Parts: sequence; structure tokens; C-alpha cells
Amino acid sequence: MSDQTVNVPGFLANGVSAGIKDNGKKDLALIYSIVPARAVGVFTTNRFKAAPVILDMERIQRGLAQAIVINSGNANASTGDRGYDDAVAMSRAIADGLDISEDLVLVASTGVIGEKLPVKKIVRRAGDLIGGLSADGIPVAEESIMTTDKFPKIAWRKCVIGGKEVTVCGIAKGAGMIEPKMATMLSFIMTDASIDYHCLGRVFRKAVDASFHAITVDGCMSTNDTVIMLANGVAGNGTLTGRSPGAAVFRDTVTHVMTELAREIVRDGEGATKIIHIIVEEVRSRKDGRKIAYAIANSNLVKTAFYGGDPNWGRIIAAVGSSGVAVEPCFVSLFMDGIPLFKDGTGVRGGKERLAHVMKKDSIEVLVKLGMGKKSYHLFASDLTHEYVTINAHYHT
Amino acid sequence: MSDQTVNVPGFLANGVSAGIKDNGKKDLALIYSIVPARAVGVFTTNRFKAAPVILDMERIQRGLAQAIVINSGNANASTGDRGYDDAVAMSRAIADGLDISEDLVLVASTGVIGEKLPVKKIVRRAGDLIGGLSADGIPVAEESIMTTDKFPKIAWRKCVIGGKEVTVCGIAKGAGMIEPKMATMLSFIMTDASIDYHCLGRVFRKAVDASFHAITVDGCMSTNDTVIMLANGVAGNGTLTGRSPGAAVFRDTVTHVMTELAREIVRDGEGATKIIHIIVEEVRSRKDGRKIAYAIANSNLVKTAFYGGDPNWGRIIAAVGSSGVAVEPCFVSLFMDGIPLFKDGTGVRGGKERLAHVMKKDSIEVLVKLGMGKKSYHLFASDLTHEYVTINAHYHT
Repeated sequence: MSDQTVNVPGFLANGVSAGIKDNGKKDLALIYSIVPARAVGVFTTNRFKAAPVILDMERIQRGLAQAIVINSGNANASTGDRGYDDAVAMSRAIADGLDISEDLVLVASTGVIGEKLPVKKIVRRAGDLIGGLSADGIPVAEESIMTTDKFPKIAWRKCVIGGKEVTVCGIAKGAGMIEPKMATMLSFIMTDASIDYHCLGRVFRKAVDASFHAITVDGCMSTNDTVIMLANGVAGNGTLTGRSPGAAVFRDTVTHVMTELAREIVRDGEGATKIIHIIVEEVRSRKDGRKIAYAIANSNLVKTAFYGGDPNWGRIIAAVGSSGVAVEPCFVSLFMDGIPLFKDGTGVRGGKERLAHVMKKDSIEVLVKLGMGKKSYHLFASDLTHEYVTINAHYHT
Repeated sequence: MSDQTVNVPGFLANGVSAGIKDNGKKDLALIYSIVPARAVGVFTTNRFKAAPVILDMERIQRGLAQAIVINSGNANASTGDRGYDDAVAMSRAIADGLDISEDLVLVASTGVIGEKLPVKKIVRRAGDLIGGLSADGIPVAEESIMTTDKFPKIAWRKCVIGGKEVTVCGIAKGAGMIEPKMATMLSFIMTDASIDYHCLGRVFRKAVDASFHAITVDGCMSTNDTVIMLANGVAGNGTLTGRSPGAAVFRDTVTHVMTELAREIVRDGEGATKIIHIIVEEVRSRKDGRKIAYAIANSNLVKTAFYGGDPNWGRIIAAVGSSGVAVEPCFVSLFMDGIPLFKDGTGVRGGKERLAHVMKKDSIEVLVKLGMGKKSYHLFASDLTHEYVTINAHYHT
């Protein structure tokens, strides 16, 4: 649902080129709410957190933010105290230009790790970035946060809460270094809903779990992953709380927007030619289901078989067996797009032949039933291709 | 140290083509000891163990074996009760031909998962396989167990124990589906040493830990991984026990042979162009060191950077930070081939420039110091290349 007229009441955005990327493409974005918004976020669990992540984790504790400034082309990670000072300087330039408190400005960076942020270039462009803020600026902001992304990722949806129209819109970037154990690359969700802080936090965490936490491209965890959501209340609905009848509708709307963005990230996975929807059923816990789903999704042998259209389902079975979950082979069954392949501890006769045409599709469902319990888990993954290797063998140079 | 005259007193070997592989290459091997040998083994920890693995795990408990029959081209995995019966039938044909007890025959298979073993072809060739047994047959046995291997892997060494010359010789196959948590693909170690069962077991386990357990190609665990060692006592040395002065020499000799084979497996890693030696120092435990070393070694972004010769050391730092070990960035330092790259929480100025020429080498050392303790861990890994994707996108078809 990308759309040229996408906007969220009370939010302005913009993007410019600050010369951080060598190729002259846009690399500096700003999201601004006309009033301070309730703010929640999740960040990478990597021990080497980038400077802007450390800064945001401090500032977001207040639960309020009014602007997010984002650069692409440099991650400002592994840059030490100087990197932190640069992130602060970046936020100060924006705060000064907008005439708001520095504490209300969040910062995000994405790009190469371990190089000093060219913060002067950013400060120099802050005026133009702010001057060009517009209600229609979300697409140009999105364009400015892309790195190896092949297409922009914008999702939005409207719902009615307490008789008022409410908009939820998110943008995201990410194609490589996408992995399970944290947020994901960068995503920023804007809404004009009026909602109390605790309800917003709950809705946000549930939606992140169901979307950005359930995807993988290459199993690699970034130092910069960030998802931030701002709710500015401009819609004028009665403030949502956990007990409001509209809370469920709002949660569904947010989950829908985030899931769409998360799927777009997988679809744009570096070099990806296929989306694989992995569903694990009949497990004792969601945690077990998650382990098994990721063991399949992150197996290079499984990923290359999908790329090659090779009906080699034995690699999926081998991955399930190496997941660390004590599965019982005789209770396990495996289906792909509904075709039974493994059952009662052995392969189903004729399965490989029937599977051959399914493997040519660009979207494939893998269903594993463990026969151990009643819980389930699912995620979206991409394949591993020559182009992934090409992109990542020479990303830096 | 491969050598045309490699042989181990008291051991005969052979290999033939049984038509299991489509291309007519040799695919059936036999190792035979003229007397029952003490036998120890380690096997995959995958929950979907192949039929021959299940059979061997039962039989090896006796601590004695006299023959190992191995086929390539079919893994006899995910084949249920029928696969087990086929493994038994395979051992029976060999036992009958050699006129020894069936319990003294071990079985191994490697190849595609989930297809019925063509056991009749194997039984039909048992006579020729046995008839051609020879003291010089180790290289042809090795040739017969190869699948995607580009070169044979044979290592041997002699030592003197109690005045007697003792030989240790191993063969191995493996290039893909190579991963940490178990043995490795297939390897068979022969020695004419006389050694008691407990001492053999201890030497074996320590040597496996230092060699096959410390390599990775693609992080994928096979259903068939097997390492078996036979000691037939033909050398006539006084039987080694844990207290013998010769035990340390023997352990060093076995470790040397296994380490050579393990490195050869990495060097022959599917599509590999480089060997990366990853050393993790100053950790609290070997377990922590292992987690960090494998987080680096199995990161597709790290592996592709090595392939491309890209001095993008930030990916190594990101991998260390995602390992699950609570490292403190400010105490971590990173060196490659002695060049300091990361220290005191930030990149070392000029590191990338100095690193550029190192990245072109085909053997590179990565040293990470954590500043948390006194333990260390190291392993060998390969890079991730276009050829890996090519090989595995179409292995089956």
C-alpha cells in the first residue's frame, strides 16, 4: 500500500543529500511531530551498540519525542566516545533548528561500521533538512534511509477509533544483517492516535514480536537495529487505554503495518529471489518453535536449495534435527505447499517428484509438525543466492 | 603427508564402484583389520540420525570391531525402519564374505538424504570389494567415500612406543554440511598400536575435540557424521594405558593426524577459497570462547567479506556482539594477522588501510581478545563464495 499521498496528521518529514554516501544519493532524513509525541522503541541486543542506539535508549526512557533524525551511509558504530558526541551533535543541530529541547530528538544511523561519522556534513545540511519539512515528505524520508535496499518500504493503514479516523504509517530500511534476536534494521512508525503510554508500549511490543522479530535474511545481528514509534494524539480520539474498546482495533492496525514492512524487508533481502514462510506447529512452547523455525531459516544448505529450486527436503529435516530441541523423528511430519514429504520417520514416496514444481515458485510455505504439543510459531525468510555473495563480498569497498 | 605407500600393519582396504553414484565413480569402501580391533567412535548429535549411525552406536558399545563398510552417493537417512534393515543387510553381506561375526562390522553412508539405499547393488559387489582387499588399499578406500570433495584426505604419522614403531593413519571425507556440534562428516582412523580401551577412548575424545570439533564450513550439522578409530595391536608394543610413558606421544600423534584431516576438510570446504584461523583469547571459559569463535565463523557477512577481500572488520565486531556472551566493548580488542583494528571501544585509525593487503591472502588469522579471563579457544573456518551457492543450489538434481 505505498501511495503518493501518504501522510499522517501532525507529522512532517523530509530527506536530503548531505554527501555521506559517495554516490550523491539522499542520506539524511527527518521525521517531525508538530507536538511532542509519546515514544516507544526497541533496539538491537548486540553488545556493540552503535552510538545513536545508546543515545536513544537513554532519551526514550522519558516516553516523549518530537523528532527523529536519521542518516544512511555510516553506522556510527564502533566509534567510541567520539561517536556518541557526534550523535549528540547531530541531535543538537536539529533541536536548535526546530527550537525544541535536545532531549526530544532521537537519532539513528545505518551504513558501514567502524568509520567516523562525518557530522559536520550533517550539521551543515540541518537547515535545509528542516526548511523542507512537509506533510508529504514521508516518501523522501524513506528514500534517504535506504542503503542496499532495492525498493522503498512504506506501509500505512487507517482505522476508526471512538468515531475518529486514525492513521498508522511506518517506514523501514533493511536488506542485509537482518536477524532474529532484536528489533530489525531501522523502522519508524508514526500515528496520530491519542494513546496512553502503557497501552502504546504493549501494542508496540506485541506488534514487533509478530513482525520484525519473525524475519531473517542472513541471521546476522546489526549493531544499529532500531524500531521507534511515535504517537502524537492529533487525531483527537479519546485517549486509548488497555481497557478501551478501540485498543484491539488499533493493535491490529499497527500489527498489520509492521508485518507489511517486515515482509517487505525479507522480499528485499540482499540477493533474495524467494520468500519462504516457515510454520512450525505442535511444539511444547513458542520458544521451541522459534528455535526450530530459525534453524531451518538460517541453514545455508536449505537457503541455497530454495534458490536452486532443488527439492532436497532432507536438508530441512537435518536442520530440524540440529535445532537443539529434542524432537522425536517418528512424530515429525513435513509438508511444503501442502505436499507431504516426511512422515513416520521416513520420506513419503513420490514426494520429491511432486515437490519439483513448487520449488520454482517465488513464495513457498514450509510446514513442520512436531507432534509434541499445541504451540506454534512462524516466520518469513529469504533464500541465499549468488547475488547475496556478490553484494556482501564488496559492500565496503 | 599423503603418500602412495601409506599402509598400517594389520589393516587392509579397498574401494569399488557399485553404481550408487550416477556418474560411475567409486562409491563403496571397506576397511578390514586382520584381527578384531578395539573400536571407539563419535557420531552426529542430530536428532535425525541416519540408519547406519543408529546401528553403529549400538554395535560400538562392545568396544570391538573388525571391518567398516562405507558407501557414498546415498546417506541412508530419513529412511525409517527399512533404512535400518538395509544397513544391517549391508553389514551382513560383508560379515558373510569375511567370515566374521556381523556385530564386528560397522557401517557408514554419505550422500543425499531421504532416498532408499540401493542395498542390492551393494550386496552384489560385496564379493569383489572383499576380494580386492589390500594393504595398499587405503587411497582407493578414501577415493570411494568422497562426494563433493575436490581432493582426497589421508593423513598418517609414525611414532615409537616402547621400542616398537606404531602407525596412525586416518582418512576423511567432507566439504559441506560441516559444523561444530558433533564429530564431522566421515573419518576413519586406523592404528596398529596396542592400547587399552579406556586409554584409547580418552585419547580419541581429546583428539576429536581439538580437531574435528573445531572446524566449520557452513554451520550445518549432518545426519550422518561419524568418526571411528580402530586399534588392532599388531605393532606389538606393550599395551598402552593411561599411565604408560608412551601415552602422551601416542596422543600427540593421533591429534596430529586428526588435525591434519580436519584442516583438509576446511581447505576443501565447498567453494572455499580461504582458511580463516579464528583465535579467541581472554575469555572466562572455553565455552564462551567457542560461542564467540563460532559466531564469527558462521556469520555469512564475515564469510563473504573474506571471500571478497573486503577489510570490513566491523562485521567481525558485530558478530562478537551477537554471540550471546556478555562481552564489554571497552575491553575488547581485534587483530588480523597482527594488525590492530579495534581497541578501547573504537576503531584503530588507519587499520582498514593496513588490512587491505592481508585480506588478499588465502590463509588469515583473526585474533579477538575479550579482556574477561584467562581461557582461550580457536577454530578453522572457510569463506562463503559464489561456488558454495552454485554447488548447493543444485546438489541433488
